[in-house]
Amino acid sequence: MNVSQLVNQIKKKKSFLCVGLDTDISKLPDGLSKDTDGILAFNKEIIQATQDYAVAYKINTAFYEQYGSKGWEVLEKTKDLIPNHTLSIADAKRGDIGNTSTMYAKAFFENMDFDAITVAPYMGYDSVEPFLKFENKITIVLGLTSNAGSSDFQTNEKYNPPLYKTVLERISKWGSPDNLMFVIGATKADALGEVRKIVPNHFLLIPGVGAQGGNAGDVCSYGMNSMGGLLINSSRGIIYASSESDFANAAHLKAKELAEQTSPFVDRL
Amino acid sequence: MNVSQLVNQIKKKKSFLCVGLDTDISKLPDGLSKDTDGILAFNKEIIQATQDYAVAYKINTAFYEQYGSKGWEVLEKTKDLIPNHTLSIADAKRGDIGNTSTMYAKAFFENMDFDAITVAPYMGYDSVEPFLKFENKITIVLGLTSNAGSSDFQTNEKYNPPLYKTVLERISKWGSPDNLMFVIGATKADALGEVRKIVPNHFLLIPGVGAQGGNAGDVCSYGMNSMGGLLINSSRGIIYASSESDFANAAHLKAKELAEQTSPFVDRL
Repeated sequence: MNVSQLVNQIKKKKSFLCVGLDTDISKLPDGLSKDTDGILAFNKEIIQATQDYAVAYKINTAFYEQYGSKGWEVLEKTKDLIPNHTLSIADAKRGDIGNTSTMYAKAFFENMDFDAITVAPYMGYDSVEPFLKFENKITIVLGLTSNAGSSDFQTNEKYNPPLYKTVLERISKWGSPDNLMFVIGATKADALGEVRKIVPNHFLLIPGVGAQGGNAGDVCSYGMNSMGGLLINSSRGIIYASSESDFANAAHLKAKELAEQTSPFVDRL
Repeated sequence: MNVSQLVNQIKKKKSFLCVGLDTDISKLPDGLSKDTDGILAFNKEIIQATQDYAVAYKINTAFYEQYGSKGWEVLEKTKDLIPNHTLSIADAKRGDIGNTSTMYAKAFFENMDFDAITVAPYMGYDSVEPFLKFENKITIVLGLTSNAGSSDFQTNEKYNPPLYKTVLERISKWGSPDNLMFVIGATKADALGEVRKIVPNHFLLIPGVGAQGGNAGDVCSYGMNSMGGLLINSSRGIIYASSESDFANAAHLKAKELAEQTSPFVDRL
């Protein structure tokens, strides 16, 4: 899926929703086996229940790597369950010297055919560019994250302009809105105006709505651009909306609710 | 293996050598099968041939992830081949919000029982601290990397002090020399003096010797401390010292050569 197809899906579904598949064996509802097979069965039901509202699915690789090669198998199989009409994102936060970044890009873009991957910026151009070289693929670079530790370096008081602005400024020149997006934490909704001054045209992947405290309406108000330009992620708030056997229906209702919070904004596109 | 055992091994082997297992199917010598089984057979011979000189082995996860779950299986099996008298390092450059970093730590410290993992600093305290919480494990944070892109942010001219110094200063307070090390690129040997002013007591993992142009003697001159405090990595220079059937012997000789370059410095400890 490319960016213009994504924009079409946003308009069609009236939604910016990205569902985060942060699936953990210890949180699987009763009735599912408490192993990697249970994760796959859970993901399948969650995807089926939310795909009318989700324009993207984001798989957090850490949750799968913790189970070793069996977990990695489930990661591959979960990727294959993501429908073609949604954007598939590997939330892997990779990044290394060029040669190695190319291997990571192959792992996610070729071997598993993800549409997009999240990438860490610390190592600079030759750690990011190998991802950008893959055609019809999208690189999503960390800009301003939603966690408390973002103040250590991203907004460290010693640096003016703050580091995250230098990251956005410099990296936005390495790719176009067609192959490059940025992660901007929703808990910093007021910072979205500042971000839009630097990257008016790129899509922003917004984690931190729901469990981490961000508000979807605020995110739209401050963050939208003429293409929409937003993917608003919710993970735990949707997939663990119920811990009972009705988990899929609860996820459906929660996804609907989040989509409806943003649909008045999508209508203005 | 802990840091004091590592220091003992350095003294015993008179070597700071870390061998990087960046193994790629396309570079396997004739006589080995050109698949993930071939990688494992190759790694086994390389480890046997170099363990008299290596005090650490570093597995670059990207090279294994590119082959999917089968590659991850070989990663697990390669870890099991690393002898207990050497430090096992997962060169994974992970880092995410706390909850997720804990999963990554479990993947590498518990599931695969690596002694150490490399971590990216951009997301700050709550992305690094979950790794540091694991007892008898070592977190190796990116400080100043050896690639050209390090000038984009780590030494960006806008920032004084440079970002990498702020990273070293702040993160060195989060752990002790017993559970925290830093990656410092060897191609910046003259910067090692600056680094030692900030982190006199922590071990430094030094990539970039050999193929990337760094010199082992310079690294020792500028980078050693009273414990030794160095792990000098060579990957391609050792494991691909020969592309013929004598590859293991060639790796042995190259590891010996690199160890001998640093042994006069180790003798002073």
